[in-house]
Amino acid sequence: MELNADWVVGFVDGEGCFHVSIRSHPEMTVGYQVLPEFVVVQHTRDRQILFALKRFFGAGAVRRNHDDRDCLRIRKLDSLNKVCEFFLAHPLSTKKNVDFRKFRRIVNLMQQGKHLSREGLLEIIDIACQMNSSKRPALEKIKTSLLCTG
Amino acid sequence: MELNADWVVGFVDGEGCFHVSIRSHPEMTVGYQVLPEFVVVQHTRDRQILFALKRFFGAGAVRRNHDDRDCLRIRKLDSLNKVCEFFLAHPLSTKKNVDFRKFRRIVNLMQQGKHLSREGLLEIIDIACQMNSSKRPALEKIKTSLLCTG
Repeated sequence: MELNADWVVGFVDGEGCFHVSIRSHPEMTVGYQVLPEFVVVQHTRDRQILFALKRFFGAGAVRRNHDDRDCLRIRKLDSLNKVCEFFLAHPLSTKKNVDFRKFRRIVNLMQQGKHLSREGLLEIIDIACQMNSSKRPALEKIKTSLLCTG
Repeated sequence: MELNADWVVGFVDGEGCFHVSIRSHPEMTVGYQVLPEFVVVQHTRDRQILFALKRFFGAGAVRRNHDDRDCLRIRKLDSLNKVCEFFLAHPLSTKKNVDFRKFRRIVNLMQQGKHLSREGLLEIIDIACQMNSSKRPALEKIKTSLLCTG
């Protein structure tokens, strides 16, 4: 199955998710690892769409998500940069575009290595907290912890 | 906002629903009314996408669905026929295309007035029961009732 760029934008406007999580990682200088990912979840019956998207972006892995759902996850920074370039050239039409722009800022900061410093990590956390229109108490907790140890 | 045909296909592959319900209607000769509809539900923040789709198809109504969700519903038979023509010319890529083809068969049968006869209604119920990959006990009950009164 060959996917068309505009189709991909429409499908991702509906089904895609740009997400950034941050988890404790004692081996890193700053103590935390930033994990940005682009995710598309589908019912198992549409698994072939996930493989077509994987081919389209030339990146990612298709795996079982939970129950009868599969997902495509793109996590490598270089691949995420390509994904960002695509959605910059082909803008999303829904409010997801607002999340995408924040996601892109985080990917850019990471490419500059900013996530490896306390100040950069705090900036990334502030951006991530404004994404996906949901409260992120875990991120707020990490932020407080970083500010207390600063 | 101007929508592109391929974007619409991708978005509907993700978010659209082709649905047929059948309800009791004592004033109709056969005693039941067939209600096909094309529905797209979105969070209220993306209400403008529903209006853009309404303009794109030149049909439908945007209303509150439930909680923080709005929906575009297209129900008029002539408008649904235009929706079907569009998705026939621009096929969906997911398994939703299977449901769409069944939906289109029902819309065609209705345009021929087949839903007004007991035999036609039974044919429509059989097709509707195979849609949306979920059991439809209410439709099975109507079918049994029609077969018993035949």
